[in-house]
Amino acid sequence: MLTQIETARSGRISREVRAAARQEGVSPEIIRRGVAKGTIAVLKNRLRRGITPLAIGQGLKVKVNANIGSSRDLASVKIELKKLRAALEVKTDTVMDLSTGEPVDKIREEILKNCPVPLGTVPIYGAALKALRRGKSFVELEPEEFFAEVELQAAQGVDFMTVHVGVNREAARVLRKTGRVLGVVSRGGALTIEWMKYNRRENPLFESYDRLLEIARKYEIVLSLGDGMRPGCLADATDRSQLTELSTLGKLVRRSREAGVQVMVEGPGHLPLNEIESNVLLEKKLCSGAPFYVLGPLVTDLAAGYDHIAGAIGGALAAWAGADFLCYVTPSEHLALPDIEDVREGVIASRIAGHAADIARGITGSARPDLKMARARKNLDWDTQIRMALDPAKARSFRDKHPPAEEEVCTMCGEFCAIRVSQGKRPK
Amino acid sequence: MLTQIETARSGRISREVRAAARQEGVSPEIIRRGVAKGTIAVLKNRLRRGITPLAIGQGLKVKVNANIGSSRDLASVKIELKKLRAALEVKTDTVMDLSTGEPVDKIREEILKNCPVPLGTVPIYGAALKALRRGKSFVELEPEEFFAEVELQAAQGVDFMTVHVGVNREAARVLRKTGRVLGVVSRGGALTIEWMKYNRRENPLFESYDRLLEIARKYEIVLSLGDGMRPGCLADATDRSQLTELSTLGKLVRRSREAGVQVMVEGPGHLPLNEIESNVLLEKKLCSGAPFYVLGPLVTDLAAGYDHIAGAIGGALAAWAGADFLCYVTPSEHLALPDIEDVREGVIASRIAGHAADIARGITGSARPDLKMARARKNLDWDTQIRMALDPAKARSFRDKHPPAEEEVCTMCGEFCAIRVSQGKRPK
Repeated sequence: MLTQIETARSGRISREVRAAARQEGVSPEIIRRGVAKGTIAVLKNRLRRGITPLAIGQGLKVKVNANIGSSRDLASVKIELKKLRAALEVKTDTVMDLSTGEPVDKIREEILKNCPVPLGTVPIYGAALKALRRGKSFVELEPEEFFAEVELQAAQGVDFMTVHVGVNREAARVLRKTGRVLGVVSRGGALTIEWMKYNRRENPLFESYDRLLEIARKYEIVLSLGDGMRPGCLADATDRSQLTELSTLGKLVRRSREAGVQVMVEGPGHLPLNEIESNVLLEKKLCSGAPFYVLGPLVTDLAAGYDHIAGAIGGALAAWAGADFLCYVTPSEHLALPDIEDVREGVIASRIAGHAADIARGITGSARPDLKMARARKNLDWDTQIRMALDPAKARSFRDKHPPAEEEVCTMCGEFCAIRVSQGKRPK
Repeated sequence: MLTQIETARSGRISREVRAAARQEGVSPEIIRRGVAKGTIAVLKNRLRRGITPLAIGQGLKVKVNANIGSSRDLASVKIELKKLRAALEVKTDTVMDLSTGEPVDKIREEILKNCPVPLGTVPIYGAALKALRRGKSFVELEPEEFFAEVELQAAQGVDFMTVHVGVNREAARVLRKTGRVLGVVSRGGALTIEWMKYNRRENPLFESYDRLLEIARKYEIVLSLGDGMRPGCLADATDRSQLTELSTLGKLVRRSREAGVQVMVEGPGHLPLNEIESNVLLEKKLCSGAPFYVLGPLVTDLAAGYDHIAGAIGGALAAWAGADFLCYVTPSEHLALPDIEDVREGVIASRIAGHAADIARGITGSARPDLKMARARKNLDWDTQIRMALDPAKARSFRDKHPPAEEEVCTMCGEFCAIRVSQGKRPK
């Protein structure tokens, strides 16, 4: 059975490529060429039903991911489904279920059933929880069990998976040698390093990467090569640990392509404004143009409670520089598991960043809605203004909180509305 | 009596320059030189008591302004004082009172009494309201009355004033000739153009700019040259109307300096990401390095309800490129007069942008708090994490909403906390 990459290389346009192209509003040939080269990934598990395949990568609109999922402190199927609905309502492009609070299998199943966009996971969490269920520690997991969990989730229909394959002995050695202010802040990265220490063995996902590739081929999983060594603070940005891992990921990108498996590469994290462009360039160079999936980046460490804003600043800049996929950050980052309102705010913040970057990159048609909004403002047409807003419900709530005395204006300027004054209607 | 510029040019360090330098954490000589050249403005009305003078400009930390003020729909002294306290609590550097809802004189007086940071206004609003009180339209105001209002507010102690001196016949002619999607979105700009049309006369503030300079000299007002022609949507960005006005402002900057009067220049508005750097460069070139005071800029027109985020993205980029002073935008921009919560969110969003830019520009010491935060995170020291957050009250509220089962971690990852796992503490 051919994979997407193989089909694309053969010059044929698969059903998935065609559907993704329609959704993107570009010709299927553009997507096919990108998939063939590996600069575009099309997300859809072979077994998954009821979703539109999504294309992510070079030359396409920036996409946004919303992380949901339970933790032991807040574990409920119902809450996760509510978060899912909230993320979809404000138009996230993908969802990741990062649950670490039981019942994780049930939560994943329910999310898969109710999620019409591609779903991603981090299978190492599931593996670790299974160890706990059996009264073991995750460090006691057999390599076999990691792959079993990957296969189990693949068979469930998960479309893309974060695998911390760059967290190997070399990366761990560089980390020990060069040190860091904040060490490892990736859960998958930290678990992997502890496993390697305890077992005095190489990371199985790195060592037996071919086994991962086999599973990915079978189910058409897009592997998202995780950044276990991403900087967790500005002081650790673009350091040797991060770059060592990125270089490993670049090699694995090439191996994946040879095996006909689609990949993306994950990136920081925390970066000062002036290091963002270079980080995107490095990923594109070292990883041969693979789609770049960034978490933030956060441009300050001080924004706890407002990290979605720090992330939107970094995300806009990263996407403008060429990042393809923005993982949202919510206001509760660094403080708590996001709730439903946080999910909404996180998605919108990332969508603002992605949309601003689309316009700056000159993506065809991306500025058209802005022009519609501008015309609606000119015409004091409030219905269209609300409808064109990224979050119409929120926009309406602001307008309804304090209705203006005159329908035509808003309470900000009232009769001093510049647009109305310019029409010759003077305040009285 | 010498003005700040004249004192600085003579090589002497004024009391105000010394105090501003102490607050900034730089040597007074740096501020003195900047004031002498006009690349730094020190804000404090000669008559104002109880405030620390504030330096804004090249080489200094980015500063943030919060706009408060009433509109006819929401006019209350009490609410304005609450907004003032909210803005100060989250550490705005300056406040502008943009009231257009009566009692504006009383509101201004009360804000001045309770505001320990520099206060700015837009006197044309006050002038227009006085016309309305007397049953006249603002277009019927005599030029004399504009200057009377400026002098009245100067005598009250206002520290800086926006004057739409670049909205002259030439700018209006270019606007008519070249057209625009959204026309004039500046209240002061729109009022001025209507006044010029009705009276078939030049804008008095432009025509008799020397009278403004006289008042500014007398009270040591910093004139903020308003951008009445700022683009109100992406489609109008960096157009001829905007650039015509900017060119006029550049000439007036030089006249102001000759007269010993400190000035800043105001800028957009709405700009796509990829036009921000050029806009900053243009201002710095055409206006001979005068401090640049930007409103946003908003990088999309679609963010109604979240415009503070669109503004933080644009503000961070503008400040990194050299803008010196960020006027906040609140979540209610384009929809309603901001309430107390909006004021908080707006100030913090701009502070994130300014702080990120300070770090990127390499302002000495600016990354130190981020390093402290990173160390607190490493040590799972939650008290310090909360204290170091830009808005400690908000950060605490997130943590308190769902207290974690174990004090050491947060509900996001719980026992899977990467930092704790890295310390060898395994989930059980």
